[in-house]
Amino acid sequence: MPDGRSTMPPITRSSNVTEQLAEGLSLLDKGSICTPTGFRAGTTACGLKQSGSPDLVVLHSKLDCSAAAVFTRNLVKAAPLLVSQETLRSNANRMRAVVINAGIANACTGDEGLRAAHQTQQLAAAALGCEPSQVFVLSTGVIGVQLPMERVAAGISAAADKLSEAGGLDAATAIMTTDTVPKFAGLKLNLSRGQVRLGGIAKGSGMIHPDMATMLAVLTCDALIDAELLHSMLRVAVEQSFNRISVDGDTSTNDTVVIFANGASGVGISNPQDRQQLQMALITLCTILAKAVVADGEGASKFITLTISGGASEEQALSIARTIATSPLVKTAFAGSDPNWGRILAAAGRAGVPLDPSRLSLAIGRETQPELLLVEAGQPRDYDQQEAEGIFSAARIAVSLDLGLGEAEVRFWTTDLTHGYITINADYHT
Amino acid sequence: MPDGRSTMPPITRSSNVTEQLAEGLSLLDKGSICTPTGFRAGTTACGLKQSGSPDLVVLHSKLDCSAAAVFTRNLVKAAPLLVSQETLRSNANRMRAVVINAGIANACTGDEGLRAAHQTQQLAAAALGCEPSQVFVLSTGVIGVQLPMERVAAGISAAADKLSEAGGLDAATAIMTTDTVPKFAGLKLNLSRGQVRLGGIAKGSGMIHPDMATMLAVLTCDALIDAELLHSMLRVAVEQSFNRISVDGDTSTNDTVVIFANGASGVGISNPQDRQQLQMALITLCTILAKAVVADGEGASKFITLTISGGASEEQALSIARTIATSPLVKTAFAGSDPNWGRILAAAGRAGVPLDPSRLSLAIGRETQPELLLVEAGQPRDYDQQEAEGIFSAARIAVSLDLGLGEAEVRFWTTDLTHGYITINADYHT
Repeated sequence: MPDGRSTMPPITRSSNVTEQLAEGLSLLDKGSICTPTGFRAGTTACGLKQSGSPDLVVLHSKLDCSAAAVFTRNLVKAAPLLVSQETLRSNANRMRAVVINAGIANACTGDEGLRAAHQTQQLAAAALGCEPSQVFVLSTGVIGVQLPMERVAAGISAAADKLSEAGGLDAATAIMTTDTVPKFAGLKLNLSRGQVRLGGIAKGSGMIHPDMATMLAVLTCDALIDAELLHSMLRVAVEQSFNRISVDGDTSTNDTVVIFANGASGVGISNPQDRQQLQMALITLCTILAKAVVADGEGASKFITLTISGGASEEQALSIARTIATSPLVKTAFAGSDPNWGRILAAAGRAGVPLDPSRLSLAIGRETQPELLLVEAGQPRDYDQQEAEGIFSAARIAVSLDLGLGEAEVRFWTTDLTHGYITINADYHT
Repeated sequence: MPDGRSTMPPITRSSNVTEQLAEGLSLLDKGSICTPTGFRAGTTACGLKQSGSPDLVVLHSKLDCSAAAVFTRNLVKAAPLLVSQETLRSNANRMRAVVINAGIANACTGDEGLRAAHQTQQLAAAALGCEPSQVFVLSTGVIGVQLPMERVAAGISAAADKLSEAGGLDAATAIMTTDTVPKFAGLKLNLSRGQVRLGGIAKGSGMIHPDMATMLAVLTCDALIDAELLHSMLRVAVEQSFNRISVDGDTSTNDTVVIFANGASGVGISNPQDRQQLQMALITLCTILAKAVVADGEGASKFITLTISGGASEEQALSIARTIATSPLVKTAFAGSDPNWGRILAAAGRAGVPLDPSRLSLAIGRETQPELLLVEAGQPRDYDQQEAEGIFSAARIAVSLDLGLGEAEVRFWTTDLTHGYITINADYHT
């Protein structure tokens, strides 16, 4: 390809990375949650997935961790999220473990679901020799079904017995539901006082599967950092990555991004420049994983990079990006390789934020950069239709909309809407 | 059927009406925009549709009309909407004619599009012997294409020559794009001082067609009523009908509902009870046409009646109804006859309004009434799965969500999301 970018989907692999890396930052081959010092993961199959595939992960740190998480904004939150939220509120500087199960989301399960999440903490604490309040719990899978706790108990015990520094990639695979590829990444970063490592795994490809409650990401870091600062850095990173993707516009009941930092590197970040570098590294890690979720979007045949520029504010530009990215008409136009740009302007016009149609300019291109101007200051241009169709036939499409109002610019990543989506979500029955 | 309701789709026909009619109100067979006294319509084919089908309508009143309209909230508005909006601002009590073309939406057409809309007014004024400022113009069809004005000129002349009191049904057919059935209705209403008539035609089935800019409704009335009151009554009626339907969540650049009242019945509505009766009749007319648009939703195989009750406010209940009605996951569950209720609660939870998951109760049924309780006060019930699947397999499904917070209740109508939608919007190329 002209700019050396890889084809989809393995954009989480270091050999194919599409991210520009800041000075001092390198991507590690097969990096994951076990890349930072002092983290081990164990995985087992305990019968939560009908396929019999591995479905339970225990992540453990040898040192107490500061931890931070962001949870779905959906008001219907799964039981493990409610329990983990409460746990972090009281214990964010002493966390030790994460238990993740796939197959059953433990969402919309009422009081019994809350009891199951608490029991998961107790079982993990007993197996790992820590306190229940040091265990973060996560679930993904079918909504409205109760967890069979005898299987979970056996699974936690088996996974805890298999903890290993090489367990990160198996963990990335075990948390998949209808994901088609595991999503993992690891980075190392040279700071003024030494080297730190970051790693992560993620799952999700839309709220893809019938009943699936979907997006999870677990990140680790061996820098020395307190929970409060870690939380603010995580929020910034998530805002620019996981909050800028959409597959189908449906926000899951289980979406969670959690980070554990155990300080095992001994490297602190009191230096403001180090702090900024770590922030950038965290943004890079989250962006790699977030794009991998989009690239694996269910039924998706195309990866769309939206750039909204000329915004009066970042909020305005983001509202417009989100509305375009979730418009069924825009997404079916991408699927049909149909350069039907009127739908893009129409979506922008209903975003609920101020807009001046006479200032809009729209360009499209392959990959991430605009090549062909379709609309300039509100007037349609006399462009070559074949060239436009050629661009919309590409597997990676750039759509650049300039609002002509200010300096704000955002990027947003999404997919097309295909028969595959309908097949996965309608033709498959629970 | 058990409750005597008809099957889809001809719910606009009086023989199959599903609306409860208030005292003094009757539905007329083959009612339309020519039902009220003094309105005539003419239709012709002038070559705007590739099929060669009729595509241009002129509606004319023998008397000056008060007129009111509501337009799309989309900030990217088509040229005819901008011109008609301006016309109504200066001349809402002296309107005479409506020109509607189908095939080309005259949207995203820049300055040339505005000139075309103005020229349409001038051509109609010349043909009908009125002023350009007495002509309301409407377009529906492909976005981003200029109107061929020599064809429009010939069409206006031909349609004006064919004005007839029997022209209403042909008009309903001519404004169709990918609609599969024409949508028309007429009512008569006995008021204290005499009888008045109302009629209407509508088109749209989502922003269905590639490039199509879609929903139009033209209503007529022969009551004596000034433009200001007419506008407030239209707003109330549209809020409870056209604003409570969704096919794909995409708001068109051309959506317009316009009403002309010519006073030809000689019957005024100074009596408050008469005013209320006319308001109810207008709501009934708009609801019949709005439901007909949903029933003809593109690719739709099911008609869904959502009832959101127990709301703290109508706005809260409506936000939740809209989010459920536009969720791809909910709509594909309907398509798949899969009683996947977790998706409905998950959609409610992301509606952006307050909600208490522990108070939610959810029931489903055939037609419009709940039969089977799935969730009660936040706890999943042990219901019969086969019964639930049976209900979700019906062509008309009722979904009733009680928020448990207050007294507000709203109804909202929508469709499922099927392969047919993808086929229409992706597989067809411009």
